Amino acid sequence: MGTIFLSEIAGTAMLLLLGGGVVANVILRGTKGNGGGWLLINFGWGLGVFAGVYVAYKSGAHLNPAVTFGLLTSGATEYGPGIPITVGTTIAYLVAELIGAFVGAVLCWLAYKKHYDAEEDPGTILGTFSTGPEIRSYGWNLVTEIIGTFVLVFVIIQFGNTPSGLGPLAVALLVLAIGASLGGPTGYAINPARDLGPRIAHAILPIPHKGSSDWGYSWVPVVGPLIGGVLAGVASQLYF
Amino acid sequence: MGTIFLSEIAGTAMLLLLGGGVVANVILRGTKGNGGGWLLINFGWGLGVFAGVYVAYKSGAHLNPAVTFGLLTSGATEYGPGIPITVGTTIAYLVAELIGAFVGAVLCWLAYKKHYDAEEDPGTILGTFSTGPEIRSYGWNLVTEIIGTFVLVFVIIQFGNTPSGLGPLAVALLVLAIGASLGGPTGYAINPARDLGPRIAHAILPIPHKGSSDWGYSWVPVVGPLIGGVLAGVASQLYF
Amino acid sequence: MGTIFLSEIAGTAMLLLLGGGVVANVILRGTKGNGGGWLLINFGWGLGVFAGVYVAYKSGAHLNPAVTFGLLTSGATEYGPGIPITVGTTIAYLVAELIGAFVGAVLCWLAYKKHYDAEEDPGTILGTFSTGPEIRSYGWNLVTEIIGTFVLVFVIIQFGNTPSGLGPLAVALLVLAIGASLGGPTGYAINPARDLGPRIAHAILPIPHKGSSDWGYSWVPVVGPLIGGVLAGVASQLYF
Amino acid sequence: MGTIFLSEIAGTAMLLLLGGGVVANVILRGTKGNGGGWLLINFGWGLGVFAGVYVAYKSGAHLNPAVTFGLLTSGATEYGPGIPITVGTTIAYLVAELIGAFVGAVLCWLAYKKHYDAEEDPGTILGTFSTGPEIRSYGWNLVTEIIGTFVLVFVIIQFGNTPSGLGPLAVALLVLAIGASLGGPTGYAINPARDLGPRIAHAILPIPHKGSSDWGYSWVPVVGPLIGGVLAGVASQLYF
Repeated sequence: MGTIFLSEIAGTAMLLLLGGGVVANVILRGTKGNGGGWLLINFGWGLGVFAGVYVAYKSGAHLNPAVTFGLLTSGATEYGPGIPITVGTTIAYLVAELIGAFVGAVLCWLAYKKHYDAEEDPGTILGTFSTGPEIRSYGWNLVTEIIGTFVLVFVIIQFGNTPSGLGPLAVALLVLAIGASLGGPTGYAINPARDLGPRIAHAILPIPHKGSSDWGYSWVPVVGPLIGGVLAGVASQLYF
Repeated sequence: MGTIFLSEIAGTAMLLLLGGGVVANVILRGTKGNGGGWLLINFGWGLGVFAGVYVAYKSGAHLNPAVTFGLLTSGATEYGPGIPITVGTTIAYLVAELIGAFVGAVLCWLAYKKHYDAEEDPGTILGTFSTGPEIRSYGWNLVTEIIGTFVLVFVIIQFGNTPSGLGPLAVALLVLAIGASLGGPTGYAINPARDLGPRIAHAILPIPHKGSSDWGYSWVPVVGPLIGGVLAGVASQLYF
Repeated sequence: MGTIFLSEIAGTAMLLLLGGGVVANVILRGTKGNGGGWLLINFGWGLGVFAGVYVAYKSGAHLNPAVTFGLLTSGATEYGPGIPITVGTTIAYLVAELIGAFVGAVLCWLAYKKHYDAEEDPGTILGTFSTGPEIRSYGWNLVTEIIGTFVLVFVIIQFGNTPSGLGPLAVALLVLAIGASLGGPTGYAINPARDLGPRIAHAILPIPHKGSSDWGYSWVPVVGPLIGGVLAGVASQLYF
Repeated sequence: MGTIFLSEIAGTAMLLLLGGGVVANVILRGTKGNGGGWLLINFGWGLGVFAGVYVAYKSGAHLNPAVTFGLLTSGATEYGPGIPITVGTTIAYLVAELIGAFVGAVLCWLAYKKHYDAEEDPGTILGTFSTGPEIRSYGWNLVTEIIGTFVLVFVIIQFGNTPSGLGPLAVALLVLAIGASLGGPTGYAINPARDLGPRIAHAILPIPHKGSSDWGYSWVPVVGPLIGGVLAGVASQLYF
C-alpha cells in the first residue's frame, strides 16, 4: 500500500511539474518559451506522462483517476504488477493521484516563481494550473472531455492487448495526439486529478495577481474524464 | 467477418476523430490550437494512425482502401493475422473503412460542436472534414495523390520485409512524413475512406454555416489513392 | 550488383522525394505548409531518410556517397548484408545514389507541378532542389558541411557498435538533429548525391521561372561531405 | 582511464556541438533556422544528447557532472560497463566533461563562423554558448536549475530500474521534456559542464562583437545542477 501511495504521488507530481511547466513556459510573461505554440504544449504534456510513467512504474503508473476507474470497469485482474483491485487499493490510487497533482503544481510554481510574480493577468495564471474552456458550455465541454478521455483509456487498454514494445513512449504519444487533436475546446484535462489538484494549489498559493480559481467549471474536468474512463473500460470488455 | 468489420470501423473512426480533430483545432474559430501550423496537423494525423492501428490490431489495421487494394495486388497471402484474402473479406474491409471514417467525422464534430457553431467560413468547415487542393487541377491533383499514396503503401509493405520492430510507430512516422513532404498541394487524402466518409458526414450534419461539400473534387481523393495503392502493390512484388 | 543498384536508386529517390517535398511545401507559393518553419523541414528530411532506409534495406541503405566513403575508410568488412567492398560495388553505390537523387527530385517536381508553375522567384525554386549558403564563403561553407557530415557518418558508425535497437529511426533522428543544429549556414547537404542529382534535375526540367542552377557553389556540397565522411571513417577506426 | 577520458570528451563535445548549434541556428543573424522557436531548440538539445550518448557509450555516457555526482550518491556500483566508482574515475569524468563541452563549443563556433562574425548583439552571442536567466534572481534561478536537474537525474536512474528498451532515445526525450517544461526561466543548463565549458570558450574565442561572459551568473548553472544531481541520487536510493 505504501508502494502504491508513494509511487503514484511521485509519478503524478512529475506529470504535473512537467505538464504545468510547459504551459507556464508558453504563456507566462517573459519566459524563454513564451508564445511557443500548441505543439510545444502537447510535447510537454506527452513527455510529462512519459517521465511520470517511469517514476511510477512499480504501481502500474495510473497517474489518473480515469485510468484507475477504466481498469476497474475493464475486467482487468490487477492495477499493476502484483497489486490487487480492491476498495482499499482503489482509494489509495485516487488519493495519491490527487496529492501528487497538487505537489507537482506547487513544484511548478516554485520553478517559475519570478514569472508568476511578474504575471498580471489572472486568467493566464489560472491557465498554468487548471483547464478552462474556450467557449463555456458545460454540456458540450463535458462531451469533449468524455471523448478525449475515452480515447486515452480505451487505447491504453489496447496497448496491453498488442505486442507493441514501446512502453511509456506509446502512452506519451497517445497523450500528445489527444492534446493535438481533441484539446482545442477545453484544454484536455482528461484526468480529474490533473485538474483538481492544481486548482486547489491555485486557491492556496500566494500569487500576487491571481484571481478566481473558477470553481464553477471545476466539476466538468472531473466528471467528464470519469465518465469517459468508465465508458472506455466497459467498451474494452465488449470489444476484446 | 464480424471481427474485421468491428475492428476496421473502430480503428478508422479513431483515425478520423484524431485526424479531423487536429484540423479542427488548427483552423476552426477560437480553439486553443488555432494557427498551430502544418507540423501540428502532421502530428495529429500521424498519431491518429498510431492510435487507430492499435485499435484495429486484430484485423491488420488497414484503415484505408488503398492499403487493402495494395495488399491485394502485392501478392500478400493474408489481410491480417489469420484473415484470408477473398472477395468477401475485401468488401468487408472497404465498407468498414468507409463507415468508420464517417463515424469518426461525426465524433470529431461532437467534440468541436461549439466551435463548428461559431465558425462562419464554409471552406474552413469543409476543410475539417475532407481535403481540397490549393490549386485546382484535377490531373495534377491526381498525380500528387497517386505519388503520396504510392509512398504510403510501398513503404508499409517494406516494413513487413524488414526487422524494424517499431510496429505502429513506424506507420505513424511515415504518415507524418507524407503529410510534411507531399501534403502541400492537396492536403494528403492518400485514403479514399478518409476523404469520402467525412464528406458524406459533412453533407448530412446540421452545421450552421456549412456550404457545398464540393462533390466535384470528391473523386480525386478516391481515385488517386486507389491508383497509388495498386501501383505500390504491383511495384512491391517486382521489387522484392 | 543489380540488387545494390535498384535498392540504392529506390531508397535515394524516396529520400529526395520526401526531402525535396518538404522544402517545396514550406517555401513554394501557395502550398498548405507554406511558412511551416525549420523544424517542419527537419522532420521532412529526417523521415525521408527513415522511409529511404526501409526501401533500401537490402543494400544497407547508404543513400549517400559520404556514407559509402565513410564505411570504406572505417575498416568495415561489408557495405551491407553480404555485399563485399570492392571497386565495382563502390562505383555501383555512387552511381545509384546519384541517379536515385535525380529521380527523386523529378518526382518531387511532379508532385508540386502547379506550385512550381506558380512560383516566380528563381532562388526559391532552386532552394527546393539544392542547397545554398546564407552567407557565401566557400571556405567556411566547406567547414560547415565537413562538420555536419562528420557527425552524420561518425554517429551512424557508432550505431553499429552499440545495442540500440532503433534501426532506421535512429538515423532519422540523427538527420533531424543535424538539420536543426548544423543546417543554419548552408542548409545541410551532408550528402553529395542529395545536392548534385537534384541540381542536374533543376538544370534540365522545364520550370517557368527557374534561374541559374548556381554551379559555382555546386562543388562545396560535394567536396565538403566527402571530406567529412572520410574523416569520420578514419576517426571511427581510431576511436573504436 | 583513457577510454573514459576519450569517450566522455567526444560525447560531451557532440552534445555541445549540436546543442550550441541549434541555439546558434535559432538566434544568430541570418541563419536558415532564425526564429525557429523553442521546440526547435528543445529538439536540438534532446537529440544532441541522443547522439552524444551513442558516441560515449563505452563510458556510460554521463556527459554531465550532475549525472556523475547523481550516480555517486545513488548507490550505483559502477559508472559504466566495468568502470568502478573511485576518486580517480570521478575526477576523470568531471575533467573530460568540461573539456568536451569546451571543444564542442569551439566546433559550433567554427560551423557558424560567418554568422558569429555578422552578429552584433553581445547577448545573442553569449546565448549560443551559455545559459542566462530571463529574470535575474540568483536564489530563484538556483531553485529552477535544482528542480530541472533533479528531474533529469532522478528519471535517468529510473530508466535503469525498468525494462524500457528505448536506450538513448529515452534520455533524449527526457531532455526535450525538461527544456520544454522547465527551461523557461533560466534556459535549462542542468549540467555544469554544458554551461562552464562554453563560457570559457566564449571568453577565449576571437568573436568581433562579443561582450561580457557574465561570470557573475556563472556559478548558478554549476551549483544548481550539482545540488539537483546529488539530491536526485539520494532520493533514488530512498525511493527504490
